Amino acid sequence: MKSGLTAKDLRLTHKYMLTAAECDARGTISPALMTERIIEVATQHANLLGIGYADLSQHGIGWVLSRMALCMQRWPRFNRNFALHTWIEDVNRLYSTRCMRITGEDGDTIGEARTIWAAINTADRTPADISILGLDSLVIGADGISVPRPGRIPPCSAEDVRASYTWRYSDIDINRHVNSVRYIETMLDIWPLEHYDTHRIAQLDIIYQHECLCGQTVAVAARDVAVTTHEIQQIPTSAPLQASDVELLRDGKRVCAAHIVWKEG
Amino acid sequence: MKSGLTAKDLRLTHKYMLTAAECDARGTISPALMTERIIEVATQHANLLGIGYADLSQHGIGWVLSRMALCMQRWPRFNRNFALHTWIEDVNRLYSTRCMRITGEDGDTIGEARTIWAAINTADRTPADISILGLDSLVIGADGISVPRPGRIPPCSAEDVRASYTWRYSDIDINRHVNSVRYIETMLDIWPLEHYDTHRIAQLDIIYQHECLCGQTVAVAARDVAVTTHEIQQIPTSAPLQASDVELLRDGKRVCAAHIVWKEG
Repeated sequence: MKSGLTAKDLRLTHKYMLTAAECDARGTISPALMTERIIEVATQHANLLGIGYADLSQHGIGWVLSRMALCMQRWPRFNRNFALHTWIEDVNRLYSTRCMRITGEDGDTIGEARTIWAAINTADRTPADISILGLDSLVIGADGISVPRPGRIPPCSAEDVRASYTWRYSDIDINRHVNSVRYIETMLDIWPLEHYDTHRIAQLDIIYQHECLCGQTVAVAARDVAVTTHEIQQIPTSAPLQASDVELLRDGKRVCAAHIVWKEG
Repeated sequence: MKSGLTAKDLRLTHKYMLTAAECDARGTISPALMTERIIEVATQHANLLGIGYADLSQHGIGWVLSRMALCMQRWPRFNRNFALHTWIEDVNRLYSTRCMRITGEDGDTIGEARTIWAAINTADRTPADISILGLDSLVIGADGISVPRPGRIPPCSAEDVRASYTWRYSDIDINRHVNSVRYIETMLDIWPLEHYDTHRIAQLDIIYQHECLCGQTVAVAARDVAVTTHEIQQIPTSAPLQASDVELLRDGKRVCAAHIVWKEG
């Protein structure tokens, strides 16, 4: 373990209360804001462990979120407390996997996530070797998290394109690239509000492949796909399940893809 | 004063630290997020004073932000602390005016805002009489805040229309109307990123006139206007100032308008 750290530091819990301004039309947290919270807590914990933005920038490298799998039994509601608990599951030369347990106000588990982070050389955005960071002593393992790692998402076809969107000032982050949370909003926004009144997201897998710049235009493609037997076993519900694959394409090249399992109700 | 409240409760301070995910491309807080924080702190303080969402909903009424004037000498930067201090300036039968002082990490004032809130009957969205709420004992006055109340913003003309935008799921809040912060993003997004590299907002006045629904389309119109002598006196800078009026129009009818004073640099 790194000097100055104790076993307690290997986990971080952050408590939240969902305000009205943070709710979507159903009065629950939106999947995009939940992702923002997940990234926020991961960032805080990395800072605490001495492997955060300030630490890595000395080596000319930085973390980028590469993949996420999020499975929610229920979404935090307006005016209610919830908490995110995070720890590092494992590391290799290129990636660090971080688990999240999401608990409700009674401390019961209401969701789980696996996030896979890559390090890049900030100058040229190429993959960086993270074995120099000495993360091994910070690894805890899955510790009961059962959401599967995000798998391959097959490509959509040209006739699946449903919308296009041009990135604007408000979509851009401190790295001058499109904010990863805005990718999620842009994908989810192809469904009308009525769809969200009758369907909730039970699982969201997302794969980030390329960064986008302000002014670039993406096409949003989506198609219905079969729910797998494994997903039916994994998601504890009596409600009917449906699934969709979505992708963002810039000049025909995929920049981001998502697999969504919808639960009716 | 209401029972159980002390003089100390008449002001609320909320401290923040600006994370990377909360920064715009220049590494400072965006005007939209600053507005979100202002609304958040106003909401927290109203809850503390017993005039918040839960209290008013018993009377079938709720607060809506009607106008805001925000004047920033400098914007909070990445990884730095800032704080919002709020209190009620005055009330009448239809409106409550709330002041905000924004301080930097040394406690120095870096900005000021005046926000004007109306109460509406939540069933039919008509104006509600807030004199029943007994707010008089909560009033403190301007207490040194000098940013002028937002004034009238003259209409743009048809040839000023620069963009259109259709509201989507991610733009909608718990009231099933477009989030007031998204109005600001949509207005600011007509300028390219390069504009924000060379200009900062010194003053932002915003007037909310009508609510929008998911699926509705707004036109965004903007025109350059003269900086007033009063603004030149009000804004302490040696940098050249410019000004723009912007409006959102739904079927030709104004739903929201802004007056922006830009500072070069």
